Amino acid sequence: MTTWTLAQRAEKMNPSVIREILKVTEKPGIISFAGGLPSPRTFPVEAFAQACARVLETDGRSALQYAASEGYRPLCEWVAHHLPWDVSVDQVLITTGSQQGLDLVAKVLIDGGSRVLVETPTYLGALQAFTPMEPDIVSVGSDAEGIDVDDVKKKGQGARFLYVLPNFQNPTGRTMSEARRQALVERLAAIGVPFVEDNPYGDLWFDQPPPAPLTARNPDGGIYLGSFSKVLAPGLRLGYLVAPKAIMPKLLQAKQAADLHSPSFNQRMVAEVLRDGFLDRHVPTIRSLYKHQCAVMLDALAQDMASLGVQWNSPDGGMFLWARLPAGLDAITLLPKAVDKGVAFVPGSAFFAGEPDPRTLRLSFVTASEEQIRIGIKALAEAIREALP
Amino acid sequence: MTTWTLAQRAEKMNPSVIREILKVTEKPGIISFAGGLPSPRTFPVEAFAQACARVLETDGRSALQYAASEGYRPLCEWVAHHLPWDVSVDQVLITTGSQQGLDLVAKVLIDGGSRVLVETPTYLGALQAFTPMEPDIVSVGSDAEGIDVDDVKKKGQGARFLYVLPNFQNPTGRTMSEARRQALVERLAAIGVPFVEDNPYGDLWFDQPPPAPLTARNPDGGIYLGSFSKVLAPGLRLGYLVAPKAIMPKLLQAKQAADLHSPSFNQRMVAEVLRDGFLDRHVPTIRSLYKHQCAVMLDALAQDMASLGVQWNSPDGGMFLWARLPAGLDAITLLPKAVDKGVAFVPGSAFFAGEPDPRTLRLSFVTASEEQIRIGIKALAEAIREALP
Repeated sequence: MTTWTLAQRAEKMNPSVIREILKVTEKPGIISFAGGLPSPRTFPVEAFAQACARVLETDGRSALQYAASEGYRPLCEWVAHHLPWDVSVDQVLITTGSQQGLDLVAKVLIDGGSRVLVETPTYLGALQAFTPMEPDIVSVGSDAEGIDVDDVKKKGQGARFLYVLPNFQNPTGRTMSEARRQALVERLAAIGVPFVEDNPYGDLWFDQPPPAPLTARNPDGGIYLGSFSKVLAPGLRLGYLVAPKAIMPKLLQAKQAADLHSPSFNQRMVAEVLRDGFLDRHVPTIRSLYKHQCAVMLDALAQDMASLGVQWNSPDGGMFLWARLPAGLDAITLLPKAVDKGVAFVPGSAFFAGEPDPRTLRLSFVTASEEQIRIGIKALAEAIREALP
Repeated sequence: MTTWTLAQRAEKMNPSVIREILKVTEKPGIISFAGGLPSPRTFPVEAFAQACARVLETDGRSALQYAASEGYRPLCEWVAHHLPWDVSVDQVLITTGSQQGLDLVAKVLIDGGSRVLVETPTYLGALQAFTPMEPDIVSVGSDAEGIDVDDVKKKGQGARFLYVLPNFQNPTGRTMSEARRQALVERLAAIGVPFVEDNPYGDLWFDQPPPAPLTARNPDGGIYLGSFSKVLAPGLRLGYLVAPKAIMPKLLQAKQAADLHSPSFNQRMVAEVLRDGFLDRHVPTIRSLYKHQCAVMLDALAQDMASLGVQWNSPDGGMFLWARLPAGLDAITLLPKAVDKGVAFVPGSAFFAGEPDPRTLRLSFVTASEEQIRIGIKALAEAIREALP
């Protein structure tokens, strides 16, 4: 009779609410605004096919061998050179998606019971990565411009770090303003609290680039997480982190223990694709697609929901917008009714570390077609209308 | 002034001794028996090139998209069907190398101060994966047949698990005998302690397959870790774990938090390569190469070291053999002298969780050429001769 005793931290792990919800919405015929997936139309399949062939032909045996935990040097160099502040290549660590960056940060910086600050609401995957290390997660007030700097000061003393996603945030789509960024970085430095800046969507702006990253304003004060998932493809699982030299050795040791290194083959493939400024040509096509999709959804919302008392924001980039149901409605209760009408979304509650706002919901505008967006928003409006008290 | 406070577990992480040693041995011209790398001659580059092209052509957008944390279903099915006991596909989790399997096991099963049993000596990467979760690692006596079952009983009560690598172990190359396996599984079940069975090398036997895995003898009593690194290529970072259904949900949640999923592209590539019994044709070529390389090293050792009082074993498969210097010598002290003579190895001390045997060393016979093996062993013999008291 074998006895399996689970670690305490395992008791705190929970099945992803989103994951469970998505299962419901995977019924055939459902128009889904629920996914967090980039549009597969944007994946540069042909460029990858060429890169694969070239890597295997010219450098196959190295690409298939074990490699350094830091990452493939030319890829680290690309990252260092393309960030808008002075980054040395030995501050770059290639990660297995930026989700792994969150896991490594959690391992290296969180003790049981130590305080970690997050936005309200915040990225669910970050909560899942932090929770196993058993922090005391504290939700900091936030508005349309981003995090409330005074609340950071009030709650931040002694925190291990503030986790923040300043550009086209998941789930809200909001972007932190220039003034807010500057104030935040200064306030954090004043109370001595580091930040972990997550920037998977920063390149997906519609009309103009977002203000400079927090890390560019205080490189010694934060860890920066980036990703190739939204500008190339998520199925290669490649991201990166940039950290001050002082804490890099521990992040690197944690990386080594976690998976030795990220796939060398994938790193070479991506480095090959990135040569010759590929992203300068490719990313604008993603931007214009997503901008158009967003405009279609905003138009549909204005047409079908204005009269219902639903509120929504108008993101400047990224993949999501954030809506709020009229008083008396609850997004979790609404979901099955919406699915009955053929449309799905993610209830916002999943993204709150503290007290949730049950009226909120996240809508992705990037994977559904234009026609599906119009039909789906109409169906959602109908579900809301029927649910109104 | 930002204050970075490291987690306690980070203080326990240490730079890999092997990694630091390998840096010394990377000088050009050094014949290295130090690496843990498979021979790149065995990588099926052409098969991968065809698989890449096919996957991207027929299924590119799915291969590049986010995917299920469990892994690509056809690959999970392949694993379930190819293991020599009854495994259901929902007991299989694809991992980012089997190193990640160790990380997930550690997260889900180890509390600070809880006991974990390991062989003497044991795989260094496992110690690195377990240490951040702050276990009390207890080294169990072992001989040429494997782990000492009586010592397991003596030290095992209340342990979270025993970590064991029964086939062609890293670092010793030893294989656990049939009788020992059976006795171990029974003893563990009697005291209620689970095992974690790591089997990266099991397919690399020279003359006959090793005895059945521990997990085949008690599927509910253990977690099994497998890898594609040694039979295909490590640069894709793909391994798998097989766990009892009762603990699978927690392992899956830990996996999701760690990196969402292993690269979908790589999983499809490997599934494509594995179709039509590729390994049945490919693995025998690795076996015969490694068997030959091992024979050459054993021959060279007999020729150059028999008179020096050096002892070594004769593995039945895998990549390593284990040697012991005569009394009075120390492998760590010997290493720089050997490097001066143009040859490198890994001192055995790195692999002991408890008191090390400083006379031991690990020799890999798979990456050096036949000629290099002969020259390298001669050089090593010379270094030993000069160091003799």
